[in-house]
Amino acid sequence: MPELRKDPIIGRWVIIATERGKRPHDFVIEEEKVKGGFCPFCPGNEHTTPPEIFAYRNPGTPPNSPGWQLRVVHNKFPALVLQGELDRQGEGMFDKMAGIGTHEVIIENPEHYTTLTNISLEGFVLVLTAYRERIKNLAEDPRFRYVLIFKNWGRAAGASLEHSHSQLIGLPIVPELVTEELNGSKFYYNWKERCVFCDMIRQELQQRVRVVQENEEFVALCPFAPRSPFEVWILPKMHYSSYIHLPEASYRSLAEIFSDTLRRLEMALGKAPYNFILHIAPIREPELPFYHWHFEIMPKLTLMAGFEWGSGFFINPTPPEDAAQYLREIQL
Amino acid sequence: MPELRKDPIIGRWVIIATERGKRPHDFVIEEEKVKGGFCPFCPGNEHTTPPEIFAYRNPGTPPNSPGWQLRVVHNKFPALVLQGELDRQGEGMFDKMAGIGTHEVIIENPEHYTTLTNISLEGFVLVLTAYRERIKNLAEDPRFRYVLIFKNWGRAAGASLEHSHSQLIGLPIVPELVTEELNGSKFYYNWKERCVFCDMIRQELQQRVRVVQENEEFVALCPFAPRSPFEVWILPKMHYSSYIHLPEASYRSLAEIFSDTLRRLEMALGKAPYNFILHIAPIREPELPFYHWHFEIMPKLTLMAGFEWGSGFFINPTPPEDAAQYLREIQL
Repeated sequence: MPELRKDPIIGRWVIIATERGKRPHDFVIEEEKVKGGFCPFCPGNEHTTPPEIFAYRNPGTPPNSPGWQLRVVHNKFPALVLQGELDRQGEGMFDKMAGIGTHEVIIENPEHYTTLTNISLEGFVLVLTAYRERIKNLAEDPRFRYVLIFKNWGRAAGASLEHSHSQLIGLPIVPELVTEELNGSKFYYNWKERCVFCDMIRQELQQRVRVVQENEEFVALCPFAPRSPFEVWILPKMHYSSYIHLPEASYRSLAEIFSDTLRRLEMALGKAPYNFILHIAPIREPELPFYHWHFEIMPKLTLMAGFEWGSGFFINPTPPEDAAQYLREIQL
Repeated sequence: MPELRKDPIIGRWVIIATERGKRPHDFVIEEEKVKGGFCPFCPGNEHTTPPEIFAYRNPGTPPNSPGWQLRVVHNKFPALVLQGELDRQGEGMFDKMAGIGTHEVIIENPEHYTTLTNISLEGFVLVLTAYRERIKNLAEDPRFRYVLIFKNWGRAAGASLEHSHSQLIGLPIVPELVTEELNGSKFYYNWKERCVFCDMIRQELQQRVRVVQENEEFVALCPFAPRSPFEVWILPKMHYSSYIHLPEASYRSLAEIFSDTLRRLEMALGKAPYNFILHIAPIREPELPFYHWHFEIMPKLTLMAGFEWGSGFFINPTPPEDAAQYLREIQL
């Protein structure tokens, strides 16, 4: 069973895969792995993935068979496992607990070469509403306190399969970066009695130097202090801390701006690898006045090196004002 | 001038290179850059680097000429610049300041193909004492509050030149990861009245499951909660918060265990890229009872992906007990 271990100095948690421990030669093999012809995510190969948890599929088609538009399955190589107790314990001065959680894969569409930049708008809406459905479902399970949804696109961003997919991790604890974000935005709210994200959106829409695109309900912008060149955040103009309370009709508007943003990035950067992450409040919380859900998209153009590892600072060679202008001027 | 910008939500600082802003095509070129034959760090090419700040060189040889064993120069493409005021200011709700600091390169030895795994012991000692000399020198300049020394080895770890070198950044502020480490270790000390690192060393030397190697004065171990597979820390058994107070004779003993550790890693992992970072207390501080200097070596075998970016957790597929055993059993 995977183990969550806490660094005794700064309190950082690490997931240690104690069972499938990798020996040195495993890393060499992974580096050299070439793409095979077989894709477990393509229609007809449903039996090669763990059983389906959720799907949008044609009426009358049975689970784990073709006829689907989107499919959610457990990760075959999960970072966390679903069964068991947290079992918090010490080993002398060190703290650890069992790696309990769920790790799901959202296969975004049946076509092997359809990606989030050439998928239909309807297809993109399905991806975004599937995120909502999975969050709603896991919120009903008292074991989970947080759901992290993210996408790794391209090998350098951590994707090991080519067929376009997102991932979901359900956790029994609130991860530390989320806690930092909650604490920071709560501190701001306590002082100003305003949401820091709402303030940010207001200033960005006035200054208009870091805005990439907007529509009636959403704005895509390069944040003031981006970790990576061409980092883009997509935020709802209306204040919601929880993704699932977004009105049904708004998912289409979100899909439009999200799809446009990814296409702008692809046209600017070629097929650069990227990660995106859905930032939401912990799923057991009611609507919070100080937190504001959003997506953060980070192209992988620079490396974490010694300076970043040692300081926690990021070095970004592209001012967000330049990046936003470049992305804004792209003709879609 | 580079700009330090603060994320308004979690307070993370980012260095934005506002002058040499990279456009999208710059990243493509960087990916495809091939090694040229010319090396600015080789003897005879001293005039192609910025002037020398410090060197170990043969008596009578002038600066910026051949005849050196180790040479420190300013980075030709510094992340921070030396001249100017911090000039803290706001831009509406956002905070920024000038990117003031020094960025130096420590050219570890004259031979192009000599690395820290095949350098002589005397050569390794020079590298370690050069770190000390540079820290001592910068500690005399009231503008600096922290000195971060690190090495990027291999392209994937951020090295852009092949000739073996380390880097140094002098900063007018204490970076956030260092502050976290200081706060964590101070919290532990306030509660236990013992140094957390001293306690860790004591437990590791008793358990002996994560120890890689030790000598009279130092221990090399895989930490309990490592971020990366085969991560190794080298710590002095004697409590010092400051690297510069280590007795002169101990640098040889440090060079021995450091060299052995890097050779073990190279034999286990091939020429895997790595970063190492010298963790020290801020340079204006007296000796601190709660902090303990050490080196952290992180091989680059896994990628930061969406889960890590979103949660702050790291997923490590190799238990440190397995890694330590593997490294320990290597015949040097």
